[in-house]
Amino acid sequence: MRTVTVTAPSGQYPVRIGAGLLPSLGAEVRARTGASRCAMVSGENVFPLYGAAALHSLESAGLETAALVFPAGENTKSLPCYGKLLEFLAEKRFTRSDCVIAMGGGVTGDLAGFAAATYQRGLAFVQVPTTLLAAVDASVGGKTAVNLPAGKNQVGAFYQPALVLCDTDTLSTLPARELNAGYAEVIKYAVLGDALLFAVLESHGGELSAVIESCVRQKARLVAEDERDLGQRRLLNLGHTFGHAVEIHSGGSLLHGEAVAVGMAMICRAARKRGLLSERDCAAVLSLLREYSLPTETGFSAEELYDALLLDKKFYGGKLHLVVPRGIGRCEILPVTPAELRDWLEDGLT
Amino acid sequence: MRTVTVTAPSGQYPVRIGAGLLPSLGAEVRARTGASRCAMVSGENVFPLYGAAALHSLESAGLETAALVFPAGENTKSLPCYGKLLEFLAEKRFTRSDCVIAMGGGVTGDLAGFAAATYQRGLAFVQVPTTLLAAVDASVGGKTAVNLPAGKNQVGAFYQPALVLCDTDTLSTLPARELNAGYAEVIKYAVLGDALLFAVLESHGGELSAVIESCVRQKARLVAEDERDLGQRRLLNLGHTFGHAVEIHSGGSLLHGEAVAVGMAMICRAARKRGLLSERDCAAVLSLLREYSLPTETGFSAEELYDALLLDKKFYGGKLHLVVPRGIGRCEILPVTPAELRDWLEDGLT
Repeated sequence: MRTVTVTAPSGQYPVRIGAGLLPSLGAEVRARTGASRCAMVSGENVFPLYGAAALHSLESAGLETAALVFPAGENTKSLPCYGKLLEFLAEKRFTRSDCVIAMGGGVTGDLAGFAAATYQRGLAFVQVPTTLLAAVDASVGGKTAVNLPAGKNQVGAFYQPALVLCDTDTLSTLPARELNAGYAEVIKYAVLGDALLFAVLESHGGELSAVIESCVRQKARLVAEDERDLGQRRLLNLGHTFGHAVEIHSGGSLLHGEAVAVGMAMICRAARKRGLLSERDCAAVLSLLREYSLPTETGFSAEELYDALLLDKKFYGGKLHLVVPRGIGRCEILPVTPAELRDWLEDGLT
Repeated sequence: MRTVTVTAPSGQYPVRIGAGLLPSLGAEVRARTGASRCAMVSGENVFPLYGAAALHSLESAGLETAALVFPAGENTKSLPCYGKLLEFLAEKRFTRSDCVIAMGGGVTGDLAGFAAATYQRGLAFVQVPTTLLAAVDASVGGKTAVNLPAGKNQVGAFYQPALVLCDTDTLSTLPARELNAGYAEVIKYAVLGDALLFAVLESHGGELSAVIESCVRQKARLVAEDERDLGQRRLLNLGHTFGHAVEIHSGGSLLHGEAVAVGMAMICRAARKRGLLSERDCAAVLSLLREYSLPTETGFSAEELYDALLLDKKFYGGKLHLVVPRGIGRCEILPVTPAELRDWLEDGLT
């Protein structure tokens, strides 16, 4: 088992990564939260596979359990589902000394985390990611959120979990498309700050748990420096700015990781055209994305994407903070005006 | 003008108290938040009286404004109104560098504060309390919340404002019943830790802004020591435990302050019966409450109130933390089991 410790200003917690960890969930939850009751929140694809084992582990450790299962898909990350989860917690009479456990992908973790952050103004929260994307990104760092009709992640809280437990066995049942979407985030970490990881991915080498660990270590470092996303943590948005716009327009036909792949390809192309990224490095990123069967193009126009960007949380004082790759393993934050943004979008498309 | 500085771990801010402060709102908001756009959230009784003056002050200071007005009453503190406010902010394209201003009573402040805490994971928040209750209690300390059908304040966040501006002129238009309901919270502070304030109230003396200042000072002290309500801050719940149960059952016929008055009377009677509070001090509290035309009795049975208490946030590890008066200006926290709670309720009724 590998452990990465995240040290955020608001709290410290371990991220456990390894095969066969699920049976230790109950003991870990007890040790980390002290709770005697827990609400498990999961998705309809995940719960039938791992729900029984997880609940068994929790109950064996003496925890009382209740479970609520949501439909798979981004629509679950909504205010109505948030309300449903809160009313479930109230109906089961959960209190501030109890615990909420999210077992699933990013959607489950983001929704359950926001409910844990706000039900009775906050109770202990545990993440059990079962997708590669959630393991390397969504489950670590304390960003929780739901979507509004107007945009993704528009409502949420910074709320660190007490524990992240990633049993890599649970990733083995992922459909290939989901696994590849997770690799989009892994490639993001490589481009952002890990040229060695980039090389490993190019050679399709590296044990999965080691790949996850290196991503989580990079994220833990950025979160420790900047928990509330006011500076360097924004680097993690590489590919996400244009990616979110593509994702909104795709109306659910693209997975989050696939939209991020398109967003990364776009920002690389635009950076190359401006002489900020070499021809060779740009080609290497695009080729690695395709290697993992990820999309690198979109049919939406710059005009269509532009409108979705105006609500982006990365707008500060009238400028959008773009994350621009300068080489493999090196990115920087560049504030651009709305007018410049149109050109960046245009340049990114082809 | 009087200023009390609240120094909470998550941030420091001034509470300004005095007559004729509203025209300085714009300059204060600019200085404290740096925002250039603000969303004003208000109630239908308050906005027609002070909305124009407030917006004028903000616009004169160069702030762009947008306003959303909600119906008066506790029903506004709900998930549907929370969703409506979030969608308003998104529609008007508010971002994290903008600001939300609550102008009104506790309902407006709690709702707008929760939206400010969670829209895009948090933007600057300013409180302009226009009721005595909000001035002395709800607007200071960073507790924000909405209700669930199952209970009051079940969903929310700890989120400190950047500024509290209380123009005491706005309290002069309060109906007598509302003003008296505010005095219930003032009496709470007196019983909790301020025997001098108690004497002032008994003599109906003291300038209003001085009374507000002494309440805010006491609250600021408790919030500084215990922002997240894990210890001494819980003293502020004096009268609120039984009061919330009465309020829920009253179905909106009692104001929050009136329910707190009943809750205080109940806990005083129960403490007296147990020999924890003298006959004389108990009679003094009940008589002061009646002096301000506040109710001290309820027609609900102990059984009816008990059920509403099981969801109370003040339950920790199976025990409810009751705030028990031991004298005028002196209270203590007493953890009781659910079984003991029934007896306390029974003793409090008559």
